[in-house]
Amino acid sequence: MEKLLKGLKKFQDEVYPEHKDRFEALAQSQDPDVLFITCSDSRIDPNLITQSEPGELFICRNAGNIVPPHSHETGGMTASIEYAVSVLKVRHIIICGHSSCGAMKAAMNPLSVKRLPHVKVWLDHCRAAKEAVQQKHDHLTDEHLDEVTKQNIILQMNHLKTHPAVFSKLHTSEIQVHGWMYDIKTGNVEMYDDKQTRFITV
Amino acid sequence: MEKLLKGLKKFQDEVYPEHKDRFEALAQSQDPDVLFITCSDSRIDPNLITQSEPGELFICRNAGNIVPPHSHETGGMTASIEYAVSVLKVRHIIICGHSSCGAMKAAMNPLSVKRLPHVKVWLDHCRAAKEAVQQKHDHLTDEHLDEVTKQNIILQMNHLKTHPAVFSKLHTSEIQVHGWMYDIKTGNVEMYDDKQTRFITV
Amino acid sequence: MEKLLKGLKKFQDEVYPEHKDRFEALAQSQDPDVLFITCSDSRIDPNLITQSEPGELFICRNAGNIVPPHSHETGGMTASIEYAVSVLKVRHIIICGHSSCGAMKAAMNPLSVKRLPHVKVWLDHCRAAKEAVQQKHDHLTDEHLDEVTKQNIILQMNHLKTHPAVFSKLHTSEIQVHGWMYDIKTGNVEMYDDKQTRFITV
Amino acid sequence: MEKLLKGLKKFQDEVYPEHKDRFEALAQSQDPDVLFITCSDSRIDPNLITQSEPGELFICRNAGNIVPPHSHETGGMTASIEYAVSVLKVRHIIICGHSSCGAMKAAMNPLSVKRLPHVKVWLDHCRAAKEAVQQKHDHLTDEHLDEVTKQNIILQMNHLKTHPAVFSKLHTSEIQVHGWMYDIKTGNVEMYDDKQTRFITV
Amino acid sequence: MEKLLKGLKKFQDEVYPEHKDRFEALAQSQDPDVLFITCSDSRIDPNLITQSEPGELFICRNAGNIVPPHSHETGGMTASIEYAVSVLKVRHIIICGHSSCGAMKAAMNPLSVKRLPHVKVWLDHCRAAKEAVQQKHDHLTDEHLDEVTKQNIILQMNHLKTHPAVFSKLHTSEIQVHGWMYDIKTGNVEMYDDKQTRFITV
Amino acid sequence: MEKLLKGLKKFQDEVYPEHKDRFEALAQSQDPDVLFITCSDSRIDPNLITQSEPGELFICRNAGNIVPPHSHETGGMTASIEYAVSVLKVRHIIICGHSSCGAMKAAMNPLSVKRLPHVKVWLDHCRAAKEAVQQKHDHLTDEHLDEVTKQNIILQMNHLKTHPAVFSKLHTSEIQVHGWMYDIKTGNVEMYDDKQTRFITV
Ligand SMILES: [Zn+2]
Ligand SMILES: [Zn+2]
Ligand SMILES: [Zn+2]
Ligand SMILES: [Zn+2]
Ligand SMILES: [Zn+2]
Ligand SMILES: [Zn+2]
Repeated sequence: MEKLLKGLKKFQDEVYPEHKDRFEALAQSQDPDVLFITCSDSRIDPNLITQSEPGELFICRNAGNIVPPHSHETGGMTASIEYAVSVLKVRHIIICGHSSCGAMKAAMNPLSVKRLPHVKVWLDHCRAAKEAVQQKHDHLTDEHLDEVTKQNIILQMNHLKTHPAVFSKLHTSEIQVHGWMYDIKTGNVEMYDDKQTRFITV
Repeated sequence: MEKLLKGLKKFQDEVYPEHKDRFEALAQSQDPDVLFITCSDSRIDPNLITQSEPGELFICRNAGNIVPPHSHETGGMTASIEYAVSVLKVRHIIICGHSSCGAMKAAMNPLSVKRLPHVKVWLDHCRAAKEAVQQKHDHLTDEHLDEVTKQNIILQMNHLKTHPAVFSKLHTSEIQVHGWMYDIKTGNVEMYDDKQTRFITV
Repeated sequence: MEKLLKGLKKFQDEVYPEHKDRFEALAQSQDPDVLFITCSDSRIDPNLITQSEPGELFICRNAGNIVPPHSHETGGMTASIEYAVSVLKVRHIIICGHSSCGAMKAAMNPLSVKRLPHVKVWLDHCRAAKEAVQQKHDHLTDEHLDEVTKQNIILQMNHLKTHPAVFSKLHTSEIQVHGWMYDIKTGNVEMYDDKQTRFITV
Repeated sequence: MEKLLKGLKKFQDEVYPEHKDRFEALAQSQDPDVLFITCSDSRIDPNLITQSEPGELFICRNAGNIVPPHSHETGGMTASIEYAVSVLKVRHIIICGHSSCGAMKAAMNPLSVKRLPHVKVWLDHCRAAKEAVQQKHDHLTDEHLDEVTKQNIILQMNHLKTHPAVFSKLHTSEIQVHGWMYDIKTGNVEMYDDKQTRFITV
Repeated sequence: MEKLLKGLKKFQDEVYPEHKDRFEALAQSQDPDVLFITCSDSRIDPNLITQSEPGELFICRNAGNIVPPHSHETGGMTASIEYAVSVLKVRHIIICGHSSCGAMKAAMNPLSVKRLPHVKVWLDHCRAAKEAVQQKHDHLTDEHLDEVTKQNIILQMNHLKTHPAVFSKLHTSEIQVHGWMYDIKTGNVEMYDDKQTRFITV
Repeated sequence: MEKLLKGLKKFQDEVYPEHKDRFEALAQSQDPDVLFITCSDSRIDPNLITQSEPGELFICRNAGNIVPPHSHETGGMTASIEYAVSVLKVRHIIICGHSSCGAMKAAMNPLSVKRLPHVKVWLDHCRAAKEAVQQKHDHLTDEHLDEVTKQNIILQMNHLKTHPAVFSKLHTSEIQVHGWMYDIKTGNVEMYDDKQTRFITV
């Protein structure tokens, strides 16, 4: 915690002054073009990997970069997506998964989270991704982690398309949905190609 | 979107090489000490304002930096908090609100979101903060935005303490909960002081 | 009711004897190949329009031929789909909407069901279809009924793909999802063509 | 699937022409007198066993002919019942269970569906029927299948009476609720007699 | 509050000594025969009106003496009923409504609670009672308060019978359900007579 | 049951006449100052232990004197609290736990209620109390029953503070929340002291 407080002081003394103009310009409101949905994982910094500045990315983060399918029940993702699309009118939504994801590992090994009732239920939103890979290979081992993670990105893109604001703006081409797979070790990002129905390196 | 892709390329070509060692060291797992909960607002970059590096902050973000009170129902926040506390064993949880928050403005003016069913229900988790300020002053105007935002941070800290893992670790002093109010325009951060029951400037 | 009881007697006296062998063969179990999801509307008889016999179609019917997106909450559709796919191992799922659908009319005119709390909430599962058509034309009139109905079939197909058993079997091509639009007046059926992304007459 | 498409063509070429007048008369709206709730089982054809024509039965079907008790939560059955009673003003509701029901078998053997999370939860709506029979006999074997199925019909009739529109129209005798037990093998139907509190053969 | 503390002291000094033996005998466990469900109304004292002693009545109280129909969702009533019937094995359940009930008045005038979101939703569990009376008379005035209250008692008895433990024990006659209407002003109690389907004075 | 009916007659013949004036004065409405939340346990009589009269305590009772944290979902406690605070404008809320509580015992031994699905889920609202005590001592035995019960009272007080009406009235000091621990055997009551953060004997 002390390190954080020192960092905060450093930000105020050294970094903020450089960005003073931008921050003052942004003081009253935001106008981002992109909704960026990614995992809570501490190794991911969306602004760093896209070299974007404050004001550019509206960011939602949870364990597993999960978008629950739309339902009458309101949750943080459902509300934040509605806000981003209908109020901020973002034109792009990126769902960004990543290598070595603890949530995906847990989804592949439900027993490992049997004492974590909410993690277990939350990861049920990834179950279809795991089962798709398992059914294709007739078994599932740690080596399938990346494949499950990619399948999960596709699944969450499906889920996203059940949200009314997204479904209707896709129909009129006012919005685009993207799937990214970020490799922490190498910094590479593979992107989902709708036509080839597979991930390709940029 | 093109700007983002260029930024990504720049990250890979120019930034990643500098951090290569750190990213490779982090490739297999994470071990953050802090769970950082903040708003999805595009103007907030937690890693920037705390000058922290990848691997230090487990970050949850949603519209309004809301932590729903614990319930049998699982949501992204409930699951991510359980994961951070019970699996990653973070020792600090920071709830960081901010100036000029669109979610707080909407919570103060429910009519403005009447056509956004999920935003409206989600912001019901802030209702008590708004009503507390309103009841104190017998009315509510735009000038109370900061006061409502601060009251909301306190409210979400209350909510956090209903989550089993947090409640029990508070009892044994294994975890600490912090409330931050970040001013976008000036870079200042006020922190909630439990003993004085008010926010103080660091 | 008397007409029904007479019909039942007629069935037992005149129709059952003809089908006796088939019914006796089916007495112990069923093995349908198709899950047929359609509206409760009294004018639709799935066995009649497909000229299929008892034992061929596992049939789910509700107002609006709606498939709620998958969630942790269990409902009749979610359970029946799971049963059909995982226990009966059907290889085709048909979602069949129809002309002059009262549910679609109500979805287009929410005010007409404001005193019917459950109908109103249930039809929220069609909202995206209505909004897609409305957004495309910038307005919505009774003449868009067929377009909304078709869009709803596509939407429910999307919803269907969020159900784990369906998602994973689609990945391995063990199952196919079909969208039908049935015209009560003429008996015609248009089918959704995935490649052309539109309905075509058979 | 090919068989179905052929059947559809046969319907259009040979069957529809005979019914052309009826279908054209029904093209704009429906006015059924009966809400018929039955199992999704492929061996049941409500129109066949009641020899009724298109337009006579508003039909809801799910695995186990289940009517969840009324609650604030909206599901397909709750909404469809509300629609049938309040909009279509049906005067009769028939809950039709049947012999050799896979859902009832699963309700009696919960272990058989332990890998089917939604089926398991859905069948919890039948648990009381199973427990009533089990408690009466102090044990439960496959031989009790018909008894559980009948008890389930009575239970679902109880559930039905918790739905506001049904409860209030029963109070004014504007609606009647019926319980049918259909035997697939013989075509017989036993009906529940409220006064004798048992099923009797018609 | 001071009055309460004085009363507590009086209880300890003057009343407890008289009951010392009974309280000591009850110190380890309870074995009540009756589950008594009544309104939270401050004017009702179940032990007073039945002249029963500590240990005789397991008491559940909420605004409106409401028993939500059984569902997968767990609430206080659902759990407490399950506990009373399955653990304590009570043999009688009394649902006791009362004259001048604020909850019933609110159920009859939903507008009066439009700013009380939870009261409004909770009273939806009484809606059917109100609608039954309204439909019978074609209108509803304050004079129907007692009639709605009685109808509500019947409705909650219906709801009670959807709870598995109650349904199955009713089937084996191990439990009895009673409906009481208590008049605060006169101390009279009318009881529901199942055969006459109306309330009769004891 | 007969004993109860005799008690009721005795109340009407002997007790009511003494209180006639009070009951007639209360016939039209109530105006309690205190919301008293306690366990359904048959050994607790709130009016007896506080020597209070009809009209003084608005009483909510359920197994375990539990107050679920506030959520969008409405339950009996949520609605009754809203009614007591916003309509009746009570100025004190007492949460009263007690010695030898069956619900607390069950919360400490979840296996004992594994066949009671709703009791199990309901007691999940006490889980944090149990885990706090368990974590402090590194184990949990029957001897910790009182400690868990007290911790549960504190937990439910936390939950209570997430309810909007309570949170905002605490902010303006219009309401006070109290925690009581009642010992059935001795009649003693310990009260929670906010400043000392422990229970003290009155
Ligand atoms: Zn991750
Ligand atoms: Zn914000
Ligand atoms: Zn229809
Ligand atoms: Zn069946
Ligand atoms: Zn009352
Ligand atoms: Zn207790």
